[in-house]
Amino acid sequence: MRRAIELAWRGAGWTSPNPLVGCVIVREGRVIGEGWHERYGQAHAERNALADCPLRSGQGASGQPANPDDPAHGCAQGATAYVTLEPCCHTGKQPPCTEALIAAGIARVVVGSRDPNPLVAGKGCEALRAAGIRVDADVLRAACDELNSVFFHFITHKTPYVVAKWAMSADGKIACASGDARWITGPEARVDVHELRHRLAAICVGIGTVLADDPLLTCRRDTPGSQPVRVVLDSRLRIPEDCALVRSCSEGAAPLIVATCAPVADEASPEAAKAKRLASRGVEVFSVAPDAAGRVSVSHLLAMLGSCGIDSLLVEGGAGVLAAFFEAGAVNEAVVYVAPKVIGGAGAPSPVAGKGAPRMADAVALGRATSDVLGDDVKLMFAPAGAARVASQTRIARKAADDWHASAAEGGAPCSPAS
Amino acid sequence: MRRAIELAWRGAGWTSPNPLVGCVIVREGRVIGEGWHERYGQAHAERNALADCPLRSGQGASGQPANPDDPAHGCAQGATAYVTLEPCCHTGKQPPCTEALIAAGIARVVVGSRDPNPLVAGKGCEALRAAGIRVDADVLRAACDELNSVFFHFITHKTPYVVAKWAMSADGKIACASGDARWITGPEARVDVHELRHRLAAICVGIGTVLADDPLLTCRRDTPGSQPVRVVLDSRLRIPEDCALVRSCSEGAAPLIVATCAPVADEASPEAAKAKRLASRGVEVFSVAPDAAGRVSVSHLLAMLGSCGIDSLLVEGGAGVLAAFFEAGAVNEAVVYVAPKVIGGAGAPSPVAGKGAPRMADAVALGRATSDVLGDDVKLMFAPAGAARVASQTRIARKAADDWHASAAEGGAPCSPAS
Repeated sequence: MRRAIELAWRGAGWTSPNPLVGCVIVREGRVIGEGWHERYGQAHAERNALADCPLRSGQGASGQPANPDDPAHGCAQGATAYVTLEPCCHTGKQPPCTEALIAAGIARVVVGSRDPNPLVAGKGCEALRAAGIRVDADVLRAACDELNSVFFHFITHKTPYVVAKWAMSADGKIACASGDARWITGPEARVDVHELRHRLAAICVGIGTVLADDPLLTCRRDTPGSQPVRVVLDSRLRIPEDCALVRSCSEGAAPLIVATCAPVADEASPEAAKAKRLASRGVEVFSVAPDAAGRVSVSHLLAMLGSCGIDSLLVEGGAGVLAAFFEAGAVNEAVVYVAPKVIGGAGAPSPVAGKGAPRMADAVALGRATSDVLGDDVKLMFAPAGAARVASQTRIARKAADDWHASAAEGGAPCSPAS
Repeated sequence: MRRAIELAWRGAGWTSPNPLVGCVIVREGRVIGEGWHERYGQAHAERNALADCPLRSGQGASGQPANPDDPAHGCAQGATAYVTLEPCCHTGKQPPCTEALIAAGIARVVVGSRDPNPLVAGKGCEALRAAGIRVDADVLRAACDELNSVFFHFITHKTPYVVAKWAMSADGKIACASGDARWITGPEARVDVHELRHRLAAICVGIGTVLADDPLLTCRRDTPGSQPVRVVLDSRLRIPEDCALVRSCSEGAAPLIVATCAPVADEASPEAAKAKRLASRGVEVFSVAPDAAGRVSVSHLLAMLGSCGIDSLLVEGGAGVLAAFFEAGAVNEAVVYVAPKVIGGAGAPSPVAGKGAPRMADAVALGRATSDVLGDDVKLMFAPAGAARVASQTRIARKAADDWHASAAEGGAPCSPAS
C-alpha cells in the first residue's frame, strides 16, 4: 500500500477534480503491475495497473502474447490489488474499475480510503464482494486520506478547497511603507509557491494586486506544471485590457476568470461593452452578487467556481481579498512564508486587512501549525486539527514527480518484478 | 566533554556575567569528579570538580579521609580534566583555576572553547603547559562555544547581548485595532518567555507598554529562576509611581532601572523630585543621552548597562522600542512567537513600528531562521550566520536544570563513578 501511495502522488496537480489514486498488483509476493491515475479524463489507477501486468510479463495466461487492452488477459488471475481509494462502480469519463478488477480475475482487493462520493460510498466494495472477491478496507487509511483532502472537500461541499497564502517579513509586513514589496522571500519559497499553483486548480487575487503588480500568476516550474485557472476579484470591472493576465489568456497560456459586480448584463453599460471585449479575448466574465460591502461575494464566487468543476483555490491576496475570505469563513488552510528580515514602519502594510477582529477572542483560529525551512525563509502551515494540509504536501508531491521523471529517464519500469 | 557540556548548562541563568563552564575529571577510564560553575561569585567548575573527587572516593591519596577544600588531597593525581572553557589564570572573585589543576596533580587538560577574555586568552593553557601538563584544545569547540554566546559578546564589546522578542498572530498583528492583546500566544510560549527572562540578565520595555499594560516583568517559573533587572525606556520620566514595576522593586522582588532623558540633574525640575522619590524606593534612574528623535539613545543605554555588568538584554517591546533597537543596529538575535490565528484589520498594530525601511533592500537582515513548535504556536529564532542563538537554547537549559533537580531529588550523585 505504501508503494501505491507513492504512485498516487505522481498525479498531484494533474487529476483535478478527480482524486489521486495509486494501485499495485501483487501475486505470489511479487509486484506484477503498477499504475496510478495520471491525468483527468484518462484511465484510472486500477486499469493502468492491470494494463501494466502483461507489459511486465510479456504474455497472457494462455501462453499467447497478451493484449494489455484486454482486462481478461489473465496475467492478474488470482492476484491481490492494493488500491489507495475504494474502486469506483459507476461510469463517468471511464468505465467502472470494479468491473475491470472482476474481469481480470483479481482474488483480493486491499483498500485505503473510503470514497465519500455518494455515487460510490461503499458500493464499490460491495460490488467486489458480490463477485466473490475478498475486500480488506481502511488499510493505511490516514495516509491514503491525505492524498485527497481536496477531492473529499469538493465532493462533499461542491465548492473549492481554499488555501490562503501570503509572504511577510518577521515583523509581519508585506511591503515597505513606500509600497516596495520585491522580494520579501527567497527563491526556495517562490519555487514552493509554484508547486502550490501546480497542485491547486485555481488561483485568486484582487484587482488591487493586478493594478499594482500586473502579475502573470501562471505556474512556472522547471518540470512541466498544470496551469491553474486565474481568478480576479474585480467588483467594478477595472481590469486593464492590456494587462499581463488578459494578454496571456488570449495567447492561450492559462484561463482567466474575472468576477465582477458591475452591470455587465445591462447591454447599454460601458461595463457590458468591456466584458464583451474581454470575452472575445477568451476571458470569462462572471457576474457575481455583491457582499454587504459591495465587494464580490466570496460565498457566491465559490459556488460558481465549484459548479465549473474547480475543486481548489489558492488565494494569494492582497490584504483586502484575504480578509474577505477569512471574514466569509471560507479558508480551509493557510500557508505563510516568513522572511528573516525586519521591515519596520507603523505605516507598512500587513497581510490581512479588512475590519479585523474587534477583540482577541474574535480572531480567526487557524489550528495548530507545522513549519518547514525553505532556504533562509520559514514556511508556516496552519490547518484545523484533523484537517489535511495541502500546503505541507508540496515536498511529497514534488519528490514523487521527480522520482517518476528520473525512472522514466532511465527507461526502466519504476519497480521491476524481479526486484 | 559531552558530559562537561551537560553540566555547564545547569548554570544557565545563574552565572551572569560569568561564563557557563562544566568540568569532568577522569582517571583510568572512570569519572572521579564532576562540577560546574553554579552561580556568580561562587567556585568555578574546575574547583567544584576537584572538590567532588574526595567526596566520591571517600578518602585522599594518603589513605586518610580527604579534605575536599584541599586541592592537593591527591584523589585527582595523574587524572585528565575535561573543561568546556580554557581555565582562568587570573584572580577575580575566585583564585585562578590553573593553580588548582596544577596543585591537584592533573596530568592532562582537554579544553573546549578558547577564552576570548583578554585576561585569559591562551594564557590559561600556557600556564598549564608550563607546569608540565598536557593540554588538548578545541575539543567539541562549537558545542562549547554555544554555551557562551552571551559571555563572548560581552567580554568583547562590553555591552549587553541583545535578544529582541515579540509575539504576533499569523498575519503579523500584536493586538486588535481596539488594543486588545491578551493573549496572543498559548501557555507553552509564555512559559518559554520566562525561560528567556531567567537566562538573560535584564529585560527592557518602553514606557508605552508600562502605561498600557502595567506589567511586572519578573521571571516566573515552576522551578526557581533568577530575576532579570527590569529596564524601562522612559524619555520623559512618565512612569507612574504606583505601577507594578515600582511597587515590586521597593518590595525587593527584582531591580528596576528607569532610563530617561528628562532633566533629573536639574534639582529645581519636577523630574528631579520624581527621580528622588523613585530612588528612595530602590529604583535606579539613569540619565541617558537622547537620540536624534529625542528618545533614549539605545547605544548610550547599552554602554551604561554594560558598565553595570549587565551582559544580556531581552527587548520585549513595544513596537517603538523594538524599532529603536533595530534602527541602532543593536539586535544580536530575534525570537518571534507566532500564534495560529488571524486578527486582521488594516488598523491593527504590528510588532515593529518606527520609520521602517524605505525600500526592501534596506530591511534589517536577521539571518537564517530555525523554528520550534510550542503547543499551538510556532517559535521562530533568527540569528546571523555563525552567531549563537540564546533563544534556541531554552529547551537545552531547561532540560539540564530539570535533570539536575531530578538527580538531586533522588539523593544520588548525578553520575556515579561505578556506572
